[in-house]
Amino acid sequence: MEQQQLTDRLQQFKELMHKIKSYGEAIGLLHWDMRTGAPRKGIEIRSETVGMLSTEVFKLQVSDEMKELLEVLSTPEAAAQLADNDRRLVEECRKEYELNKSVPAEKIKQYAVLAAQSESYWEKAKGDNDFAGFEPYLTRIVAMKQEFIDYWGVEHTRYDTLLDMYEPDMTVEKLDLVFDRLKKRLVPLLEKIQASPHKPDASFLKDVYDVGQQEKFGLYLLEQMGYDFEAGRLDESVHPFATGLNPGDVRITTHYVQDEVLSAIFSSLHEGGHALYEQNISPELAGTLLAEGTSMGIHESQSRLWENMIGRSKPFWQRYYKELQKHFPDKLAGVSLEQFYLAVNRVENSLIRIEADELTYNLHIIVRYEIEKMLFNEGLEVKKLPEVWNAKYQDYLGITPPNDSLGVLQDVHWSGGDFGYFASYSLGNMYAAQMMATMRKQIPDFDQFIGQGNLLPIKEWLTDKIYVYGKSRTPSELILSITGEELNPDYLADYLEAKYTEIYKL
Amino acid sequence: MEQQQLTDRLQQFKELMHKIKSYGEAIGLLHWDMRTGAPRKGIEIRSETVGMLSTEVFKLQVSDEMKELLEVLSTPEAAAQLADNDRRLVEECRKEYELNKSVPAEKIKQYAVLAAQSESYWEKAKGDNDFAGFEPYLTRIVAMKQEFIDYWGVEHTRYDTLLDMYEPDMTVEKLDLVFDRLKKRLVPLLEKIQASPHKPDASFLKDVYDVGQQEKFGLYLLEQMGYDFEAGRLDESVHPFATGLNPGDVRITTHYVQDEVLSAIFSSLHEGGHALYEQNISPELAGTLLAEGTSMGIHESQSRLWENMIGRSKPFWQRYYKELQKHFPDKLAGVSLEQFYLAVNRVENSLIRIEADELTYNLHIIVRYEIEKMLFNEGLEVKKLPEVWNAKYQDYLGITPPNDSLGVLQDVHWSGGDFGYFASYSLGNMYAAQMMATMRKQIPDFDQFIGQGNLLPIKEWLTDKIYVYGKSRTPSELILSITGEELNPDYLADYLEAKYTEIYKL
Repeated sequence: MEQQQLTDRLQQFKELMHKIKSYGEAIGLLHWDMRTGAPRKGIEIRSETVGMLSTEVFKLQVSDEMKELLEVLSTPEAAAQLADNDRRLVEECRKEYELNKSVPAEKIKQYAVLAAQSESYWEKAKGDNDFAGFEPYLTRIVAMKQEFIDYWGVEHTRYDTLLDMYEPDMTVEKLDLVFDRLKKRLVPLLEKIQASPHKPDASFLKDVYDVGQQEKFGLYLLEQMGYDFEAGRLDESVHPFATGLNPGDVRITTHYVQDEVLSAIFSSLHEGGHALYEQNISPELAGTLLAEGTSMGIHESQSRLWENMIGRSKPFWQRYYKELQKHFPDKLAGVSLEQFYLAVNRVENSLIRIEADELTYNLHIIVRYEIEKMLFNEGLEVKKLPEVWNAKYQDYLGITPPNDSLGVLQDVHWSGGDFGYFASYSLGNMYAAQMMATMRKQIPDFDQFIGQGNLLPIKEWLTDKIYVYGKSRTPSELILSITGEELNPDYLADYLEAKYTEIYKL
Repeated sequence: MEQQQLTDRLQQFKELMHKIKSYGEAIGLLHWDMRTGAPRKGIEIRSETVGMLSTEVFKLQVSDEMKELLEVLSTPEAAAQLADNDRRLVEECRKEYELNKSVPAEKIKQYAVLAAQSESYWEKAKGDNDFAGFEPYLTRIVAMKQEFIDYWGVEHTRYDTLLDMYEPDMTVEKLDLVFDRLKKRLVPLLEKIQASPHKPDASFLKDVYDVGQQEKFGLYLLEQMGYDFEAGRLDESVHPFATGLNPGDVRITTHYVQDEVLSAIFSSLHEGGHALYEQNISPELAGTLLAEGTSMGIHESQSRLWENMIGRSKPFWQRYYKELQKHFPDKLAGVSLEQFYLAVNRVENSLIRIEADELTYNLHIIVRYEIEKMLFNEGLEVKKLPEVWNAKYQDYLGITPPNDSLGVLQDVHWSGGDFGYFASYSLGNMYAAQMMATMRKQIPDFDQFIGQGNLLPIKEWLTDKIYVYGKSRTPSELILSITGEELNPDYLADYLEAKYTEIYKL
């Protein structure tokens, strides 16, 4: 193709992309608004509005114009002439196009209706502790997802097709090795912790902490970590989240609970981590599909790095505990730094994933991963889920849920068909630990910086190594380029062993 | 046409309309968000997003599908078969289509760019008191608007074409009579007031009033007037506004000024009035062009009725002043109800429209109306504006602006090309006074109800007579059906004379 012609088509392609992004901003704001305070009586029409705009986006994504542009820009001849990021953009978009195009529109509509129903039946079933009431919906969701897998195509195992949606290039083969290794190191560690006579005292947390002060402290921490309030804002919502509406508008929410002071602190650090990633993607990628986090796992690595590896570290509280005490003098004056540090790091083999500590969290995820694999690769029937769930909780965490609401019904994900997603959370922990190990080598004063409240060198390192690239590097390219090796679960296990050996004097 | 075929086309038309409305909701939220706290660094991309969506709406409005549907549904045969509201909907939409279609797309684009530039040059010129710097832009805006008038077509005078955009069926011929009558009665009234030895003492207002308490009192008043917080919310913005995103989501904003306690109170009542209108439009009209206020003038009649005719009345403060005192005991304990009532109703011939009282406000509007007419019908040159402006202020208000920033440069409207809009404000006052006169007859206990804080019968009356109809009745149909006569400025003059005769003991 002539150079000029190629440039013109690339331009046209980018304009189409930009239009899709603009719709995305509008849809993102409509969602953000629904979660942060849109009036109840407007929700029904609002949902229709979101539906209409989403349909328009889908039409653009599978349009003839898109098809033709992708064909023209994907020829080996064209690809050879494109700049790296442009070639990557075309590839990403092509992948998305193929996925969108492969499933008949009628099926997608059916699925959307089913998923919406299923989610509301899940909510009811969870409240009523009634797995049987939810089972028929979940069975249909799994069946439709199996149909979709056929449309999308199977390269390795059927479950691989789902994993790849959230974590490109991740496979069952790789994850099995990684999770087995992790399990082998974490389960014994957990047993040792449980056997330890040392039990951190967290009784001072069971108290009422003023919400206004919680908010002030959260804002302060976000400023400290380098969150740019001129390119974002902090609001409250029932479930905290981060959303990048555009590169200059990356918002986060938190949730203040009077008698759980740690909740807002760690959710602010968590969402702040997600937001730092999106606020610092290279402006060159703005308006394209590449101006996003490269995978759910890498995104989670950033939220968990800030929330846990930095936010639950001793140097962090050496610097910030006195600030927290200033916000709550009547609650914390008599609580020592050591006592506080131990309390925010206590390990409990609890039933609920979202309340879990840094260690057991991974075991919660491994349970889900193994069950999802059984569902999609090994023909596990949906009705067997409670039984399998409970057995695995007993095996890995040493506890059995007393009912399904506290067991297999606890998470929303499956009701909406999000199979393959859970792994991202533990991948995030593993990526984060591996990145941290490299960062510690490259920033020898890492702990001192944190202890001084000098967090900007850390933000800058993460920006240079990760954030700027957005989706222009795949997760595996990224972790290899930063750390010199592929994903290695030993970093997380080493980190957790070292941390808890000291805390629990193992 | 076959009945079934007509029904199908009507359905198709309504779906298209609904889609346009959905875009409108998204655009409305994007704007609301920009004014209530969207982060600064996201504004540039945000503006592009708004531009993209607006372009999509425009494309739908002038689409071949729209054209064809309007043709089919506008035939005498089809019109005869349509229900009243559907026929009206088709008419409204046809009018909008003709307007949109008549101006070449290229011109619209040029104009949008010019208006955006012009507004920013106006802002600069106002700050620098530099009319000459703004003049070339305003000259071009007027020239383009003149071109547009040619495209849109002239039925009566050229300025009529502009008036009709904001107030359907309103003409220069009618407005000249109405404003002349008003001027003849208000100018002498103002002179008498100025000559009165009674000057209300408002010195207690020059004090710092806690913003948190201002907010609480504003929320309380909005509840009292029947604003539905489950179908709306109150936020803060630099310039207060109301926006109906959908029938269940009608939002308002206010602005708290520490040393102007009245500002937020009356702006909440004002925007609350706009919002009551939109919250109470018949649900049957939802999703169509008719689910809006019928004109700018009628919309303003509702905001002004609540802000001024109810909100500055004696019975209102007989009920609510003690509540206000509770919010500001240290400021108002020594200020009597009478003193407060006089202070909120003091008349001052000030230079600035938006700070004007109920009486002089209309004179500010008449100045602008007469000047706009000169610009479009009588060839007044833009460079002569300051001179004409100052002369009219001297004539009607007895004062001459010391500079153009306090004179001809004070309002944003002209910089954006909104000629014909100003009249709506005084039309609102006149409609409101005329409606009030009827309401007083039909609700004999009107004053007692207000004095008891029983505002719901008033809201219900307004709902039955005005709000439910949305845009399904024209302003002239509405005022005639409610009051039994056409717009009559004497009601406003009577109301103001009675009120100020008592206050100023004339």
